[in-house]
Amino acid sequence: MGKSLDLEECESSSPSFNSYTYPNPLQDNPAYSVVKQYFVDADDSVPEKVVVHKDGPRGVHFRRAGPRQKVYFESDEVHACIVTCGGLCPGLNTVIREIVSSLSYMYGVKKILGIDGGYRGFYAKNTVPLNSKVVNDIHKRGGTILGTSRGGHDTTKIVDSIQDRGINQVYIIGGDGTQRGASVLFEEIRRRGLKVAVVGIPKTIDNDIPVIDKSFGFDTAVEEAQRAINAAHVEAESNENGIGFVKLMGRYSGFIAMYATLASRDVDCCLIPESPFYLEGEGGLFEFIEKRLKESGHMVIVLAEGAGQDLMSKSMESTLKDASGNKLLKDVGLWLSQSIKDHFNKNKMVMNLKYIDPTYMIRAVPSNASDNVYCTLLAQSAVHGAMAGYTGYTSGLVNGRQTYIPYYRITEKQNNVVITDRMWARLLSSTNQPSFLGPKDVSEEKKEMPLPETPLLDNGAGNIPPVTKEVTK
Amino acid sequence: MGKSLDLEECESSSPSFNSYTYPNPLQDNPAYSVVKQYFVDADDSVPEKVVVHKDGPRGVHFRRAGPRQKVYFESDEVHACIVTCGGLCPGLNTVIREIVSSLSYMYGVKKILGIDGGYRGFYAKNTVPLNSKVVNDIHKRGGTILGTSRGGHDTTKIVDSIQDRGINQVYIIGGDGTQRGASVLFEEIRRRGLKVAVVGIPKTIDNDIPVIDKSFGFDTAVEEAQRAINAAHVEAESNENGIGFVKLMGRYSGFIAMYATLASRDVDCCLIPESPFYLEGEGGLFEFIEKRLKESGHMVIVLAEGAGQDLMSKSMESTLKDASGNKLLKDVGLWLSQSIKDHFNKNKMVMNLKYIDPTYMIRAVPSNASDNVYCTLLAQSAVHGAMAGYTGYTSGLVNGRQTYIPYYRITEKQNNVVITDRMWARLLSSTNQPSFLGPKDVSEEKKEMPLPETPLLDNGAGNIPPVTKEVTK
Amino acid sequence: MGKSLDLEECESSSPSFNSYTYPNPLQDNPAYSVVKQYFVDADDSVPEKVVVHKDGPRGVHFRRAGPRQKVYFESDEVHACIVTCGGLCPGLNTVIREIVSSLSYMYGVKKILGIDGGYRGFYAKNTVPLNSKVVNDIHKRGGTILGTSRGGHDTTKIVDSIQDRGINQVYIIGGDGTQRGASVLFEEIRRRGLKVAVVGIPKTIDNDIPVIDKSFGFDTAVEEAQRAINAAHVEAESNENGIGFVKLMGRYSGFIAMYATLASRDVDCCLIPESPFYLEGEGGLFEFIEKRLKESGHMVIVLAEGAGQDLMSKSMESTLKDASGNKLLKDVGLWLSQSIKDHFNKNKMVMNLKYIDPTYMIRAVPSNASDNVYCTLLAQSAVHGAMAGYTGYTSGLVNGRQTYIPYYRITEKQNNVVITDRMWARLLSSTNQPSFLGPKDVSEEKKEMPLPETPLLDNGAGNIPPVTKEVTK
Amino acid sequence: MGKSLDLEECESSSPSFNSYTYPNPLQDNPAYSVVKQYFVDADDSVPEKVVVHKDGPRGVHFRRAGPRQKVYFESDEVHACIVTCGGLCPGLNTVIREIVSSLSYMYGVKKILGIDGGYRGFYAKNTVPLNSKVVNDIHKRGGTILGTSRGGHDTTKIVDSIQDRGINQVYIIGGDGTQRGASVLFEEIRRRGLKVAVVGIPKTIDNDIPVIDKSFGFDTAVEEAQRAINAAHVEAESNENGIGFVKLMGRYSGFIAMYATLASRDVDCCLIPESPFYLEGEGGLFEFIEKRLKESGHMVIVLAEGAGQDLMSKSMESTLKDASGNKLLKDVGLWLSQSIKDHFNKNKMVMNLKYIDPTYMIRAVPSNASDNVYCTLLAQSAVHGAMAGYTGYTSGLVNGRQTYIPYYRITEKQNNVVITDRMWARLLSSTNQPSFLGPKDVSEEKKEMPLPETPLLDNGAGNIPPVTKEVTK
Repeated sequence: MGKSLDLEECESSSPSFNSYTYPNPLQDNPAYSVVKQYFVDADDSVPEKVVVHKDGPRGVHFRRAGPRQKVYFESDEVHACIVTCGGLCPGLNTVIREIVSSLSYMYGVKKILGIDGGYRGFYAKNTVPLNSKVVNDIHKRGGTILGTSRGGHDTTKIVDSIQDRGINQVYIIGGDGTQRGASVLFEEIRRRGLKVAVVGIPKTIDNDIPVIDKSFGFDTAVEEAQRAINAAHVEAESNENGIGFVKLMGRYSGFIAMYATLASRDVDCCLIPESPFYLEGEGGLFEFIEKRLKESGHMVIVLAEGAGQDLMSKSMESTLKDASGNKLLKDVGLWLSQSIKDHFNKNKMVMNLKYIDPTYMIRAVPSNASDNVYCTLLAQSAVHGAMAGYTGYTSGLVNGRQTYIPYYRITEKQNNVVITDRMWARLLSSTNQPSFLGPKDVSEEKKEMPLPETPLLDNGAGNIPPVTKEVTK
Repeated sequence: MGKSLDLEECESSSPSFNSYTYPNPLQDNPAYSVVKQYFVDADDSVPEKVVVHKDGPRGVHFRRAGPRQKVYFESDEVHACIVTCGGLCPGLNTVIREIVSSLSYMYGVKKILGIDGGYRGFYAKNTVPLNSKVVNDIHKRGGTILGTSRGGHDTTKIVDSIQDRGINQVYIIGGDGTQRGASVLFEEIRRRGLKVAVVGIPKTIDNDIPVIDKSFGFDTAVEEAQRAINAAHVEAESNENGIGFVKLMGRYSGFIAMYATLASRDVDCCLIPESPFYLEGEGGLFEFIEKRLKESGHMVIVLAEGAGQDLMSKSMESTLKDASGNKLLKDVGLWLSQSIKDHFNKNKMVMNLKYIDPTYMIRAVPSNASDNVYCTLLAQSAVHGAMAGYTGYTSGLVNGRQTYIPYYRITEKQNNVVITDRMWARLLSSTNQPSFLGPKDVSEEKKEMPLPETPLLDNGAGNIPPVTKEVTK
Repeated sequence: MGKSLDLEECESSSPSFNSYTYPNPLQDNPAYSVVKQYFVDADDSVPEKVVVHKDGPRGVHFRRAGPRQKVYFESDEVHACIVTCGGLCPGLNTVIREIVSSLSYMYGVKKILGIDGGYRGFYAKNTVPLNSKVVNDIHKRGGTILGTSRGGHDTTKIVDSIQDRGINQVYIIGGDGTQRGASVLFEEIRRRGLKVAVVGIPKTIDNDIPVIDKSFGFDTAVEEAQRAINAAHVEAESNENGIGFVKLMGRYSGFIAMYATLASRDVDCCLIPESPFYLEGEGGLFEFIEKRLKESGHMVIVLAEGAGQDLMSKSMESTLKDASGNKLLKDVGLWLSQSIKDHFNKNKMVMNLKYIDPTYMIRAVPSNASDNVYCTLLAQSAVHGAMAGYTGYTSGLVNGRQTYIPYYRITEKQNNVVITDRMWARLLSSTNQPSFLGPKDVSEEKKEMPLPETPLLDNGAGNIPPVTKEVTK
Repeated sequence: MGKSLDLEECESSSPSFNSYTYPNPLQDNPAYSVVKQYFVDADDSVPEKVVVHKDGPRGVHFRRAGPRQKVYFESDEVHACIVTCGGLCPGLNTVIREIVSSLSYMYGVKKILGIDGGYRGFYAKNTVPLNSKVVNDIHKRGGTILGTSRGGHDTTKIVDSIQDRGINQVYIIGGDGTQRGASVLFEEIRRRGLKVAVVGIPKTIDNDIPVIDKSFGFDTAVEEAQRAINAAHVEAESNENGIGFVKLMGRYSGFIAMYATLASRDVDCCLIPESPFYLEGEGGLFEFIEKRLKESGHMVIVLAEGAGQDLMSKSMESTLKDASGNKLLKDVGLWLSQSIKDHFNKNKMVMNLKYIDPTYMIRAVPSNASDNVYCTLLAQSAVHGAMAGYTGYTSGLVNGRQTYIPYYRITEKQNNVVITDRMWARLLSSTNQPSFLGPKDVSEEKKEMPLPETPLLDNGAGNIPPVTKEVTK
């Protein structure tokens, strides 16, 4: 019955499931008591893909998030904990605040612990007791009041700690590595037969998590990036052959760079990991810079940190051996801006490049209004799910609807800018930068990155996909 | 042939249509030349409703926006004009900028006019010549560089003016009244058989336009409203029984108030036009205020300007006869805050109410990053459509996709907060305010405002719906 | 000996004074231990007037603020309390924070109480225990964490409360009414022979306190007022004959309006209490508005809330009898904007006036960097003085130097914009507004408000001015 | 007569001077016509030092700035030019705007040229015609609309260009190098006997120019630096042993770092060029970092770019030979943060350092309200002086009064943080950082940097100090 937390099973064995459930305390909440539609029907689902091809399959659907009429946990017995892992992202504190608020205000839960400093906080003694008073103002601050760290994941020790402390709801806020960790915890917990809900809330400022519409904090990051781009533009305009060069986040996917460019309209060139480029020769970056400077006397370049990594590696091998210098140079922004300077020096051309790296200034701001709303919905959904007895899922927005998504869906691949998609075309036509692509690149491209179609998933294999329902017409 | 701008007809009579078309100049644009998918297939469509009921009808679909392989206008012959009407809204200048940029950079159009001061500018002599240089920085300013006004719509004179000046693309940015005007212009132009594309871009800071996901400027407005709410919260917290009272925009729909409340988390009570409330007696507003002040010593109230209008009218009749005083009191914010003060005075209770009306400070800010991107897409879509020979549509985001929507779809009804929907429940459970609803209200409510289902539209009658395709499975 | 807190006496009776003093604990502070100049010599003074007339008298001097080598209180025996009174002002929390930090970090004081909700908090039971942890982040929030109120001053009860609780340092942050209250407390405390230092920190967002260079929060207020003026400008520019009308703080003195106007450069007319004006006829406001609208099609008016009060009173008597309407109309901003509307209606001229009252949004913001530094210095100076045994003073910046100023100096008059001074001329020449002055006004004016000269003060009378030294050459 | 522009001479030869003067057109300006005091008396002066020592000398005085009753130039004959040199600084555009506005609105001057791109723009063909319309909105943008550059100063060519174009007022906005250049131009112009007023407006974001109260843009820079420090603080707090490390401007003087630290209150250590420090050993930086991390788990370091240069040079010699790596490492921020990392690595201690360099993001913002007012006064003063026939001066605020300062006064030395002064003590006591000073350092220090006293200047040597009057009692 502990095992019955598995949703698939829950559904098939409703009799036994019923024996564990209680009426949702929200039914006494004046806000919910009047309108029945406020509660989500257990069968409601949201399709992954909107584009409906006539006669095509209906594709993957996710459970719709929201409060259920019945809950699995009694409020008194809930002992929840929250942990934040990985790099900072605007909105972390809002998510923490809203998990605590939802648990305490909506469900009357009293025992909520903050785990200190990421996964490794599970096997430390210190924890942070959380209640609605403690978290009342935290959404106005950047960072995470719980502290964070990377790595530090020892499955056995963590599950031991959960078991020892009697925790039965674990909320894990973190990126894809963290969610992979959550998935392993979930398996171990199931293996041990514990009645513990493991819930993820995907965090990635880069927006590189698949399935969901966007990740929280992304909007704020794009907004905040405007400051750096504005500054770069002002510096560029005020100097002879001025180049404002801004490095933004985006190790594997260039969403922040792309949207920041589209939002600003002052950017002349946007370089992202998904779109390979080259420096020298015809159609190369140097040629484009020279051309643009000749035309308008200044330019702004935005670079996602993951762009041009291959070029840098190649270049570094041959020129730099020194260990300590090496470290600093691994920053592609510093490397590329130096390469541009070198090129212009070599050609005796005047050029004034100003390099701006606003990464930490962006990560550390509090979330904006739009992200605050989004974080609130994610947190409320997460709590409704755990209270209803779901586990092994992350809460996420899919096609504008809050859903529960099984872990493996969001860890199996990455969300990338599809450079054959219209959004990238919009960017290209607004910057007028070269595509750095020949027709060959594109056809190759297509093989690797197929355009999003409604997939026919073969996961009848049976053993897992908890929250997914396959509905083929 | 003039008539052939009607899309329905275009489709059915492709041979004659082809005789008017030219290759899209974007095919020579490096950004578009390599990747074919950048161009939209004329048959691509986007469904209005995402929730797919098994075996249900497929519902209304809208044409997908974007560049077509062939265009109807040659760049040289295009003579475009842009007009902005109604109240200010963040993003107006971005939309103007991007229409101009799209026309000139993407399609090489040279003749673009700004109409000065709304519809009535059509029959004034002065116009504002627009090019990419003039509009280069305008998106960083609030307001509209073209000026705006309400009303002033004389169909005959306007179409005369269009005809006299030889204008063949008219871009009209404005609210639902303006779009209704655009629709009339479109009919008159069709009646005269002119080859003029009439394109609307719906503008409403209140987000009260139906069909589309959200209106531009809304996000910025919610963001900017946070300042006022924060100030109200600080004032309330610092004074004994402090009440911070913020009036926000929202004449008929309370989206700004609702989202600003959800984003802030400092609001104790949110009053919107869609959710009736009452002041006196059990379950009334005064009772709630007293209760909340007793609990926490202060509170924040957010009011959409259209809320409580009925209460105010009733109250005003009996008490106030004076004409000039009357004028000022018509502001529901001033009226309600005075009513609250009177109530507390009557009961000899200490209370410090601070009233904040940030309306003009919100309307006048430049658009934020997210709205900048959105405005850009709307403007680009609008231009692609006009160039392709479509007319009588507005460009809008539907389920995350850019589409072309026939006028009548967005003028026939209004977008409102559905108070039986989950988002309002989320608000209620976050503020813990009373719902002011009895079960009776809700069931009545339901009759009027059915939950959004996939509608079965009977518009086969034939006479209009240009951009809509009815696809029943 | 209690009396010996009086500085004048302290000086004259240094032997007895010495017997009460201890070495300043800062002498062990590494920051202070090395450099002797960090400590202020008891005789250091700062002149009130900079302009030195040859052979003129040297004028009033104030004691220079700062740490002394010897202190009057031992750290262990200090029991301090802090109270904030009157309206909100940016920087209140910073001042609170820095009094607490200075007492605890610099002097090792452990007993610090916050009085809750202004003067009346002295005779309430609840107090707020303060330490450096509690106040650590409060300077990032607007308002006052201690709460505030107006009035509520019962000298006997307050001094009783101080005596009962064993408080020996009272820090009072508030406007001129509050400082007058502090002065009375100081007298009563002296009368009772208590060893209690009473220290004021003058707070007035309007900058209307004399002697000191500027009041804290003023800079932030001027900065924040720019938002409202910008919005007014955008609204004005976007509408036909648009008038953006902004009401700012300034009941008796128009500093905020004047500096906000000078900072913005978008204002066409600035109205302040010190500069009388009239509406009708030649040289009147209406004439000027019409002229400016004809010239440039829009204008921005900034009004200090105390301006035009006489005009309003006159106008109100004759036209409005209604009680409840009356109340609202007492706002001069609403009244004047209505008068302008009426004038234009009467003359059938198109005009679009947008009225913005940002008062509470300005008062409630946290202090900016410049005010943060200023608040820090004020608080540190206040603490150094109290620790050294001074009392009956406020800390304030005079000619760029921190000083101790006896109460009566700052309560005896008010700081006003001198309209015959160059700063107002700068404003006039930047707005090009009429001066609304005839030569007669100015000569009358001059009698009332003499230009600042180095005054020859006859206060040798002896009995009071503690912190002032009269040095006549 | 041309020579009579020399102020000293002007005064002594008033007869000949009178023959060149005209009534100031401001006498017809309604703002100035009524009040006589608006005009400055030619003899008004402002003392450099406020602190008045009994029986001491009166010290250096500067001419008070402001409009004179008589002017030297007729408005029609004025041909002014403006040039901006050196790095960006908030407020450049405001200064440009206000010079243009003052010339055109106050004095009716029509011929105003902008020199493009710094000094070297004098011998380029392109110039930017300036009028009040062109500059109307520029103060809302960062940077300089005229462009800027470093160096490029060829005295002969520049004066040739001035002569050829018939320019008779040259406004030069730039740092100390630029002002030194201006001084040379002034000499050459005098040598050639040209009637050309050369006016400087000192620009240095670092506030390192002596005599004047503060340089424009400084306030804005301190404000903007708060963002970076806040971000550093958030990053530090959220990570185990987190160090937020912010590099700020300040090549030779640490004012920005010092004031930004005082304003923020979140900084644990502030390193400036004036206060030498060392890394290793007792009392060194590393020891302090370890201590602070142990105490509070995180810390924030602010470094002025000129601090620790000597340490870096020493360290670099021995360890790094590589040329291209070298370049990057010359940044003391990168070097010091790397040194800290290495130290902790070596000692196997966990530590998370985040390095933020907001330099270009600070320089490029528009000026805040306070700087806008300041820039306006500087520009107006500069214009009044030139119109009155003064030359060879910069306009500057001295003890809160606008004055004219001869070039040599501001180029002969530099303004530095005096670490034996109280402000630095305030900083030390607020951060609790070590002073890194032994008693020996201080006494040495004192020899080099004497505490500001009222100096007895022996500059009776005669031939120069134009705007200075030596008044010894």
